[in-house]
Amino acid sequence: MLAVDEDRVVSDLRALADFGKVGTGVNRPAFSDADLAARRWLMSQMQAAGLETVIDGIGNVCGRTPDAAQSILVGSHSDSVPNGGWLDGALGVIFALEVARAARAARGVVGIDVISFADEEGTWLPCLGSRTFCGELAVSDLSGVQTKTGERLLDRLTQLELRGRPFAALDTQRHRAYLEAHIEQGPRLISDGIDVGVVTGIVGLRRHVVRFRGRADHAGTTPMAMRRDAAFAMFDFAASLANRLGAAGGPDSVWNFGIVAVRPGAANVVPAEADLTVEFRDTVADVIERMEAVFQAAVSAADGKFNVAVSSATSGTLAPATMDAELINDLAEAAAEVGASHVRMPSGAGHDAMILAPRIPAAMLFVPSIDGRSHDVSENTSEADIRRGFRVFAAAVSKTLERLARSGGALTPVSRREKEPAS
Amino acid sequence: MLAVDEDRVVSDLRALADFGKVGTGVNRPAFSDADLAARRWLMSQMQAAGLETVIDGIGNVCGRTPDAAQSILVGSHSDSVPNGGWLDGALGVIFALEVARAARAARGVVGIDVISFADEEGTWLPCLGSRTFCGELAVSDLSGVQTKTGERLLDRLTQLELRGRPFAALDTQRHRAYLEAHIEQGPRLISDGIDVGVVTGIVGLRRHVVRFRGRADHAGTTPMAMRRDAAFAMFDFAASLANRLGAAGGPDSVWNFGIVAVRPGAANVVPAEADLTVEFRDTVADVIERMEAVFQAAVSAADGKFNVAVSSATSGTLAPATMDAELINDLAEAAAEVGASHVRMPSGAGHDAMILAPRIPAAMLFVPSIDGRSHDVSENTSEADIRRGFRVFAAAVSKTLERLARSGGALTPVSRREKEPAS
Repeated sequence: MLAVDEDRVVSDLRALADFGKVGTGVNRPAFSDADLAARRWLMSQMQAAGLETVIDGIGNVCGRTPDAAQSILVGSHSDSVPNGGWLDGALGVIFALEVARAARAARGVVGIDVISFADEEGTWLPCLGSRTFCGELAVSDLSGVQTKTGERLLDRLTQLELRGRPFAALDTQRHRAYLEAHIEQGPRLISDGIDVGVVTGIVGLRRHVVRFRGRADHAGTTPMAMRRDAAFAMFDFAASLANRLGAAGGPDSVWNFGIVAVRPGAANVVPAEADLTVEFRDTVADVIERMEAVFQAAVSAADGKFNVAVSSATSGTLAPATMDAELINDLAEAAAEVGASHVRMPSGAGHDAMILAPRIPAAMLFVPSIDGRSHDVSENTSEADIRRGFRVFAAAVSKTLERLARSGGALTPVSRREKEPAS
Repeated sequence: MLAVDEDRVVSDLRALADFGKVGTGVNRPAFSDADLAARRWLMSQMQAAGLETVIDGIGNVCGRTPDAAQSILVGSHSDSVPNGGWLDGALGVIFALEVARAARAARGVVGIDVISFADEEGTWLPCLGSRTFCGELAVSDLSGVQTKTGERLLDRLTQLELRGRPFAALDTQRHRAYLEAHIEQGPRLISDGIDVGVVTGIVGLRRHVVRFRGRADHAGTTPMAMRRDAAFAMFDFAASLANRLGAAGGPDSVWNFGIVAVRPGAANVVPAEADLTVEFRDTVADVIERMEAVFQAAVSAADGKFNVAVSSATSGTLAPATMDAELINDLAEAAAEVGASHVRMPSGAGHDAMILAPRIPAAMLFVPSIDGRSHDVSENTSEADIRRGFRVFAAAVSKTLERLARSGGALTPVSRREKEPAS
């Protein structure tokens, strides 16, 4: 069992929250001055913990146990959304730092490597740091990347003197597992009064824009039977699709119709055009495919109904990521040991772990988010829940370290492993 | 029977369409230079026809048969919407002018007074000219009236040297009936291949804004059962309300949900707020009340469903106007005489006739609109339909003149008359 210091976790979290502090939150978008200052501070902490520390060509901060041939990679991200919460990402990085400190003191066979990934939040590109780390993106892929305001990523990396440095890279011979702690960013744990969430998978998603094309007519003089009302076709489609998705999806499936536009938008003009953005998510690829089939059938059934043409275009797709069954067991057993209640649950939000999971065994632990809030300065987790979550995380890392040491590091490669069924 | 000249109607319509000509349409918003030039031209035509002609303090052009104690008032409006059609309003004014010319030649007991009302289209205020004419608006009511761009009506009337002139006024002792010809502005006549429409009533309307208030949540991390999705509540409400209105309304009832807003409007955020503008129309007040009751019941039923608060505010109300049964008969018999097919139908759009109808017997004749188009330069009616419509209108005016002459002008006041049941 690692000899960790809970108080140091709390004080390190407070210290990290001073970089870009905004009220009770932080404003630390990727590659902002506050983000870089936080990363330099993290480097100094990792160095003090005895880790070989670098900041790589994309801003990932990596602390490596110098004398271990194998390691567990632990971490998260330290960038934030604009005016975001103080724990989103930061929690997992500081949990990792403290676990690494304790592991350095214990000097086991398997070491701990700590990482703070760059731009998980996608100020420039979602999961940018974990994607270069895993070889999904090379420097040549970054030339067109810019912010919404048109600032170019490569220019910014040059300004920060990061451009030209090598990218840190996943080493599947060394990195035998990835563990990440994170705030839930949803209301489930806090509502059900459960201490921690053991993540079974990270949802994949499919996103479509559905276009309804009718005809603008005078809403007083055009008989109902002669109209081609795009908005009414959309209302009918949306109400019916929600029922179909509910029937086709699993217990954890979610869907959202978040963007609605109706034109021309006058009280006395029959709507000519409506656009509806539909997305649905699940942790299980087969369930997403079932929902996709239901969606496509709904579009086909709607096309021409009410004399309105209906079509759709896919605007986003993301495969679900399955968490490792043995790591899940380590987390669940750790919770039981520490006396924390837990639930196995999907992650509805994306995380760096979904980039790692296809390559090495990966798992995540969630702590409760007060009122389910995140991506806002109001995001928070009680100190009791932070401390309890850290105890579970540290105990789980200890278990995984022991398991790896027993097996001589011979974990089955992820591609040959059985997948954990979704909860 | 009045000895009218169809060719003169067609050439006068072409002449009027030169004022503010834009392609095949006209740009003649109320009190624009083109509108005033057209009104001055109309005055000259009315004077040439032997009518006592004035332009009043609001821009109404009135031509009065000098030696008659009683008259039928005929007319419409000669202003247009911005870049509108050449016949909307103009048709009824030119029909009236030709009928008056013929009546002057016939020198009957009952005369014809012609009117072109100001700003029927509401550039400043809908039916502005007919409302001052009927005493609904006095000069003191106009001080706050301005265009969308902030130009003040009284300033514009001063510039045009109209301010300070008296308002022409309805004289219920003199004006025994009001007859107005107009383009249909809808697709019904053209679709059904019917020559003219005899208007039974002008629809009243009720307009409401329905507000749905839920909560913004992360669309990935918030379980479906914990959401308060304002957009979904709106879809459900709209689909259900349309069915209820269909059941409660009459055969000519129409409704429209023309303005839809959903906030915050992001693919991955559960919609917190939705606003829906609902309007419904019918020619029969009782039917409007039935639809109103159904609407209010739907709002009550929706409030709290899906944990979304639903409320509504009335943003517009307009009483229906019933057309005079005897004038309707005159129009229908005239159509039969002329060999034109006709249908009794409601007007789904507002007209100056609805301001006159509560005060004196009033009726309207519709001619077909090609493709149902209006309020656009593409608005048009075939010359054959214009000529046929004019023959019906002139024959109807002849019938009404004869009927009034027989009864010595003793029409029953409108308030004591039986109302025509809606078709």
